[in-house]
Amino acid sequence: MNDLCRLSASEAVARVAKGEVTSEELTRACLERIEEREPEVDAWMHLDPDYSLAQARERDRAPGRGPVHGLPFAVKDIMDTADMPTGYGSPIWEGFRPRADAACVALTRAAGGVLLGKTVTTEFASRHPGKTRNPHDPTHTPGGSSSGSAAAVGDFMAFMAFGTQTLGSVIRPASFCGCVAYKPSYGEISNEGVKENTGSFDTVGLFGRAVEDLPLFRAAVTGEPVRPLSPVSVKGLRVGLCRTPLWDKALDYTKALVEGAAADLSRAGAAVSELDLGGPFAEFEPMGRRVSDYEISRALTWERTHHFELLSEFQQGKMKDWPVVSYEEYREGERVMAACRAWLDEALKDFDVLLTPSATGEAPVGLDNTGDTAFNILATWTHLPCVTLPLFTGPSGLPVGLQLVGHRCRDHRLFEIGRSVLTALSI
Amino acid sequence: MNDLCRLSASEAVARVAKGEVTSEELTRACLERIEEREPEVDAWMHLDPDYSLAQARERDRAPGRGPVHGLPFAVKDIMDTADMPTGYGSPIWEGFRPRADAACVALTRAAGGVLLGKTVTTEFASRHPGKTRNPHDPTHTPGGSSSGSAAAVGDFMAFMAFGTQTLGSVIRPASFCGCVAYKPSYGEISNEGVKENTGSFDTVGLFGRAVEDLPLFRAAVTGEPVRPLSPVSVKGLRVGLCRTPLWDKALDYTKALVEGAAADLSRAGAAVSELDLGGPFAEFEPMGRRVSDYEISRALTWERTHHFELLSEFQQGKMKDWPVVSYEEYREGERVMAACRAWLDEALKDFDVLLTPSATGEAPVGLDNTGDTAFNILATWTHLPCVTLPLFTGPSGLPVGLQLVGHRCRDHRLFEIGRSVLTALSI
Repeated sequence: MNDLCRLSASEAVARVAKGEVTSEELTRACLERIEEREPEVDAWMHLDPDYSLAQARERDRAPGRGPVHGLPFAVKDIMDTADMPTGYGSPIWEGFRPRADAACVALTRAAGGVLLGKTVTTEFASRHPGKTRNPHDPTHTPGGSSSGSAAAVGDFMAFMAFGTQTLGSVIRPASFCGCVAYKPSYGEISNEGVKENTGSFDTVGLFGRAVEDLPLFRAAVTGEPVRPLSPVSVKGLRVGLCRTPLWDKALDYTKALVEGAAADLSRAGAAVSELDLGGPFAEFEPMGRRVSDYEISRALTWERTHHFELLSEFQQGKMKDWPVVSYEEYREGERVMAACRAWLDEALKDFDVLLTPSATGEAPVGLDNTGDTAFNILATWTHLPCVTLPLFTGPSGLPVGLQLVGHRCRDHRLFEIGRSVLTALSI
Repeated sequence: MNDLCRLSASEAVARVAKGEVTSEELTRACLERIEEREPEVDAWMHLDPDYSLAQARERDRAPGRGPVHGLPFAVKDIMDTADMPTGYGSPIWEGFRPRADAACVALTRAAGGVLLGKTVTTEFASRHPGKTRNPHDPTHTPGGSSSGSAAAVGDFMAFMAFGTQTLGSVIRPASFCGCVAYKPSYGEISNEGVKENTGSFDTVGLFGRAVEDLPLFRAAVTGEPVRPLSPVSVKGLRVGLCRTPLWDKALDYTKALVEGAAADLSRAGAAVSELDLGGPFAEFEPMGRRVSDYEISRALTWERTHHFELLSEFQQGKMKDWPVVSYEEYREGERVMAACRAWLDEALKDFDVLLTPSATGEAPVGLDNTGDTAFNILATWTHLPCVTLPLFTGPSGLPVGLQLVGHRCRDHRLFEIGRSVLTALSI
């Protein structure tokens, strides 16, 4: 492997800025790695090496455009790209060529990014899996729905990648593939040009290899200046261990790893206590499912009414009877979601960050199922920012992440806390 | 004029269901009216009479599909249509042919609607006007941004039409063109396939000619069963006269008409009192503008970075410097919007409905400016449902509407109140 592709995005960008490496060299390093690994991993839906290199050379000739100048990045194939086909993981959209880039893609390119290719998504970022295999063991799922983005970044084929999360589609595959990943506060990154799954939950997220990479991309897509990560002391940090009502779904080693992390942070001086989700959370999961089931069926009306036979069996089953839940049931689901958000915002006043599993365990064996979203719906449906840190290894030697959940719209603060926690737990 | 095109949508649908009229006859009536009036009004971006008639004949052969079976309807050209070009009011998108229908279009067709054509929108549903003239006097604006939909329905060229409202793009043109119109609770109708302007505010709305028409279309797009309008007694109805902090922008005759309506309702037994917007509303307008300016500039990144020269001067001025407001200013704007929503939800506990102008007055002279949104931002930005009723005539003989604002997600109740208010004030 060309060692260049092992750099973090922030290191790579810094070297380009200093003239120590060219964008073309970074891009070639990714392309070589892809050539070597893609037959086993199948992370990509579309690649055009000549075109990627042409973009990179253009970046090398031009003055620095922005915070990710010269950096190759990957885009989940649920997002529109003007110069690459976009298939949303469905044969219904095969060969589709959008006229425009999705806003997050256009903003990243305007900030100097080099579009490397489109990565595999499950069907409409829902359950039906794509072709991707876990780069750490091809007999295991990479997770989903952002399967290709997680595998590409986890396997050093791209420095950064965009994904989306509606239930657990960023944090879970990142945990399975050994990436750092970030699911922002709802609305932080524009959904414009991203195929809708569940509008009330859909959140564009990022895969990277270091916490330091996240502020770069966040700056590119929010228009915020790049802010350095200020140090946060673990001493006195108010950490909430949040087992969630679905704790029993976590495998024993996952429970032990998360509880062990809490104990380690406590030993390092953090004020660790437990947060039990109360009040409206009794109905959280079934009510959120109502919102999700209703909205995706509504968003895919054209597909349902024109190409029902091309939907997966899973999706057909979900959407056969429109509406899948009644309008009143849907709105009741939304009211419970709003109540849960308010309850958790209030509860978070006593905590700087919550600690919870990124997934139930390692990536499961098999490619038919992308894994359980049990520990991802909390942050997604309450619109809170979260990150997963690739801290642990499971019994099969596969990666296991630790999830941190932060305060709404304090995403940068969550990065800072994340770096401190990572450092404290890596010692 | 063929009198068929003067029917309300609910009358037309009922006659089709009884076999008293065919969908083809309804469609021909609209097409004849269009042929007669379009040279003066210019409401349409795309028409295909043969295709509309073919759809209508198909409806006539088939069993009733749903609540709008056989009814010709129009679609604002900000919404994707698989079989008609979609231009978003911008030369950048000229000749664009989406692969799919927007969800609201697909749902309406699945419920039996006949797509008549695409109506003129301002550029990206923002300020820069299209070609449409007011059907009541072609020297006056039809309002915007749903200019063509308002003019088409107000001029009997279509029974119903879709529009979108981000500031005042449904209620204001409906008031100017003499339509009934409805801006739903935020999220009530899917935005999937609708070009984004300001995601936090964008709301798909409807133009019609009778309050009774609104539940039909609402049923088609929400999956709700059609619910009849139960009678609501004006006696004891808690009506809040809401002048808003922008009251001075209303022309004297508008103030007199709205206050007169309040007095008439009081005489009819309603409990009328005033609602002064307090608390966070002091900053409502400038903070909402931040959200709007930030989000539209972000959503149009591809257009800004690839086709800046094809944007209107207005839009160029708005988007020249990205970000137009800082990220922190944007999020502060959002926090104020959330506080205003919570404040108004609480205040509405004392009222069944609010009474406020639909626009500052009649449609202004000239086609360069689509009019003032001063009285539309309240309901749009607070996500509350509203309707405008074509009750009045201004000093130039042009229509002036009255706006009613209802409780969040109680849209059907607002229709019921609207019908009672219309009846009480029409006596």
